[in-house]
Amino acid sequence: METYSSKLLQSAVEEFSKLPGIGKKTALRLVLHMLRQDTETVERFSDSLTRLSREVKYCRECHNISDHGLCEICSSPRRDPSIVCVVEDIRDVVAIENTGQFHGRYHVLGGIISPMEGIGPADLTIDALEERIAGSSAIREVILALSTTMEGDTTGFYLYKKLQPFNLKISVIARGVAIGDELEYADEITLGRSIIHRTAYDLTTAK
Amino acid sequence: METYSSKLLQSAVEEFSKLPGIGKKTALRLVLHMLRQDTETVERFSDSLTRLSREVKYCRECHNISDHGLCEICSSPRRDPSIVCVVEDIRDVVAIENTGQFHGRYHVLGGIISPMEGIGPADLTIDALEERIAGSSAIREVILALSTTMEGDTTGFYLYKKLQPFNLKISVIARGVAIGDELEYADEITLGRSIIHRTAYDLTTAK
Repeated sequence: METYSSKLLQSAVEEFSKLPGIGKKTALRLVLHMLRQDTETVERFSDSLTRLSREVKYCRECHNISDHGLCEICSSPRRDPSIVCVVEDIRDVVAIENTGQFHGRYHVLGGIISPMEGIGPADLTIDALEERIAGSSAIREVILALSTTMEGDTTGFYLYKKLQPFNLKISVIARGVAIGDELEYADEITLGRSIIHRTAYDLTTAK
Repeated sequence: METYSSKLLQSAVEEFSKLPGIGKKTALRLVLHMLRQDTETVERFSDSLTRLSREVKYCRECHNISDHGLCEICSSPRRDPSIVCVVEDIRDVVAIENTGQFHGRYHVLGGIISPMEGIGPADLTIDALEERIAGSSAIREVILALSTTMEGDTTGFYLYKKLQPFNLKISVIARGVAIGDELEYADEITLGRSIIHRTAYDLTTAK
């Protein structure tokens, strides 16, 4: 139990230390930083969070976070509707967009199959992906851009089995990403190349 | 320039990444964590910050952050008014309070003399400390509990020179804290002992 001279301070530190990877000392450092800013700056910070929390929407096509019913990528005429890149979450969309190598659209699974954490296929947007493919004549290729971890491989294999009946090209990003690494921490060049050199899905590379 | 699918998301990530030590990727991770909480939880987080920023006060005696004009420590009859422990900022107060070894009062300098960062004695509450000592017959001892860095030593030496005329016992916390370490990262036992084994200020130990 930490002792603070102010209940207001204590409450702010406790709120900050609920964030993942933020301990009490870091929380206090961040709160003291906030205290050195003027009130308008702090309010801008707080408002941006509460607005996001209240008003956040998810794209009805790709399930990415979006301000509208259809996200900017799904509604852009410059994005190729024939290629859908399947990713775990929005951080992977950001990482791939930063490479500038992908001009298709996305499908955000909202997680990854992980029996250890009790996350099964039904918790992800896999049904929605099947419906999306079934309802679209434009989609020709699905790229599986998942982390090269056991969970990523499991999810990729599950998706491959589910999508096989649709008679699409199913590809995986090139394994330039070191095995065991999380996708979002890959450098932009490696990740960009892994999009360019994607290969046809092959059961022997999946395991 | 990062690309996000939502302006609301972008604005929240940008606000988070202004915090010290928080890059864009960590900011996105924290914001996505926030998004998984319900709106009330996010509002509690935001409100705790804006309230602190709007309503924060500083104790008129010790200059610590306080909810009232006089902080809980300065107004407590159980705290010994004859010993004043001088620290750099509130993180050091928290660290010393956590040792349970100090029962006197504090004086928070609000920083440390650092020519490199352009922080001089006039930027700190040193004048207020002199006034506080001059206006009180209770204070018998001042403990200098500063980091064992060059800035801490400089500040300690400056304070020693300023406080010498008051005919007080001036002590420094025992150098159990490894030279070069920041005070706030010391473990509680080392820091607690350094309060107990404080020694009379001696020009030969100051350098």
